Amino acid sequence: VSRVDSPPFNKAAMDGFAERSPDVAELPATLALVGDSFAGGWPEFRVGPGQAARITTGSPVPEGADTVVMVEHTEELEGGRVRVLKLSGSNICPRGEDMRRGETVARAGEFLSPLGVGVAASAGHERLAVFRRPRVALLCTGTEVVEPGRPVARGQIYNSNGPMLSALLGPLAEEFRYLGVVGDEPGRLREAIRRGLQADLFVISGGVSVGQRDLVPPTLEELGVRRVFHRCAIKPGKPTYFGVRDGAAAFGMPGNPLSCFVVFQVLVRPAIRRLMGLRCAEPAFRDGVMDESFGNKPGRRNFLPCTVRAREGVCHLRRTRSHGSADITGARSADALLSLPADCSGVEKGETVRFLWSGPHFPPFSPGG
Amino acid sequence: VSRVDSPPFNKAAMDGFAERSPDVAELPATLALVGDSFAGGWPEFRVGPGQAARITTGSPVPEGADTVVMVEHTEELEGGRVRVLKLSGSNICPRGEDMRRGETVARAGEFLSPLGVGVAASAGHERLAVFRRPRVALLCTGTEVVEPGRPVARGQIYNSNGPMLSALLGPLAEEFRYLGVVGDEPGRLREAIRRGLQADLFVISGGVSVGQRDLVPPTLEELGVRRVFHRCAIKPGKPTYFGVRDGAAAFGMPGNPLSCFVVFQVLVRPAIRRLMGLRCAEPAFRDGVMDESFGNKPGRRNFLPCTVRAREGVCHLRRTRSHGSADITGARSADALLSLPADCSGVEKGETVRFLWSGPHFPPFSPGG
Repeated sequence: VSRVDSPPFNKAAMDGFAERSPDVAELPATLALVGDSFAGGWPEFRVGPGQAARITTGSPVPEGADTVVMVEHTEELEGGRVRVLKLSGSNICPRGEDMRRGETVARAGEFLSPLGVGVAASAGHERLAVFRRPRVALLCTGTEVVEPGRPVARGQIYNSNGPMLSALLGPLAEEFRYLGVVGDEPGRLREAIRRGLQADLFVISGGVSVGQRDLVPPTLEELGVRRVFHRCAIKPGKPTYFGVRDGAAAFGMPGNPLSCFVVFQVLVRPAIRRLMGLRCAEPAFRDGVMDESFGNKPGRRNFLPCTVRAREGVCHLRRTRSHGSADITGARSADALLSLPADCSGVEKGETVRFLWSGPHFPPFSPGG
Repeated sequence: VSRVDSPPFNKAAMDGFAERSPDVAELPATLALVGDSFAGGWPEFRVGPGQAARITTGSPVPEGADTVVMVEHTEELEGGRVRVLKLSGSNICPRGEDMRRGETVARAGEFLSPLGVGVAASAGHERLAVFRRPRVALLCTGTEVVEPGRPVARGQIYNSNGPMLSALLGPLAEEFRYLGVVGDEPGRLREAIRRGLQADLFVISGGVSVGQRDLVPPTLEELGVRRVFHRCAIKPGKPTYFGVRDGAAAFGMPGNPLSCFVVFQVLVRPAIRRLMGLRCAEPAFRDGVMDESFGNKPGRRNFLPCTVRAREGVCHLRRTRSHGSADITGARSADALLSLPADCSGVEKGETVRFLWSGPHFPPFSPGG
């Protein structure tokens, strides 16, 4: 709630001279100067009939005056007088025009943008109570996964989910902790999961399929996590796990890097926004036009990385090269994820489709939905 | 440049059984199991005619095998045999399909997105040489300006540019230093400006008009800054100053908060992107349709805060309430800045216009332009 009127006084919008409008009803008019009003000061005088005051942009308009004439439309004369040659509006911003004392200027659950911060400051607030961003922990699993920079043995691959998820999660977290890679030794996995569950949001990459070695869901549940879902009708991202414990949330992400990226955009980012206290947490899907025809296997809601190019104000989409759910090399040039409904058996060129911005330059959320 | 092929071996895309395709040309077919291939290991055996190996998703396909049949399409039999009932493609991702050893996977001057980080990691890179973000300093000037939370005397206003510019600049800076508010006492101003010039980018709010008390440009130049421009043909933002010294850059911003915001979006953010080493630094203006008619005074390129709503894939714009270049309360709901050319005398409803995303959720830069 604003503590002040903004502007807090009738304010000059121009450098010039303040006077009474009846005195400049006929032009040219010559007026006697009775004082100056500069920014930061307060004019302790009154402008009477036939009088004017020198004034700078942003300064308080002296009592009695109701118009400011631009300096360019005047001539200063000897003997403390000014001749007014031309008018162009009153050039006064009235007290309280932008914001009134007592007016609500920010609400809980809104994102506080830089302009919102500026508004809260002009309202007199030095501090605002806000929701804390979540503390986030990340763990990577997989006996085949080796951190980049180390030697890889035959059958092993470099860890790309760890660095990618760190880049995605880090900027959204109050505190971000990367717990490294663990293999499938149950004791070590259990210990790492116990540490990760201290965060508000715990993200685990890999180990969530239903195979023999996929120990993440049972270990989470042994440690008190309540399963909300395991397996999800999206493609890629089917093995995704989600559970909660004492207000903390845990995501088990697919090990395939592109699946992991899609699940981040579609499920994890909205969860983080909810944990941040934002009312508007859901991904904002937008309309575009597909620039190519292709078939689709119905079954699950399908997300395909696409480039987006605007032509005459309309977004046109094309799929990026893809060799499947491990191929982030192809998906890297994507601006968005095309979203095909579960019953879609194909898209025709020119058809209207729904998409979610997913490129680094297009966060998918807008206050306007 | 990639240090490895990705995938580094022929990789199973499914849980199932690996075998030779001639052996499953006629179905059902019964094969003898000769081993297992699990993720993280390496199959030290060969699949010969009439043989198969148990295999999990992401694991290396054993030598000799050229197809993987999904576990759902098989029956395991007694005596270490498996019956294959159905085929659905080869389910193998061939070595090097996504990325080849020696291939260029990132270039100087590109923004390294989270997916780009993931790609660099799969290419085996633990560290990449990147441009440092600039160190940024911010100074606010004005005798009338008081920090929020302190008492305001008559004629004074709360500092909104300081908090707003901190929120805009902070996340883009390697190191951000806020130098507070100084009045117009020349010695203190000079000292503050000297400190600010130690940063890579120095932003000063206020004191750049051509009035008697506008001491920022002369003080910058006394301290060795070379003027690049002072006054700019944009509205708002006319008094903007820009100068350089020894690779450091200084912006003198208008004191009016909305002007300050516009100049940040149109000039300062692109400068920061250039300082970050990004090839694509210019603001990306996009096409939209104006949803109302209004007149415009020609003269300078005019930027007006607007809301943007997508309808059938087209962006529709409306101006937000504005009482002029101090009114950030009205501009706060804006998603974008409408850009009118200098000779524009008005816009008709339905006319195509150019705009720049400026809301917190729509950074205005896209790799695709």
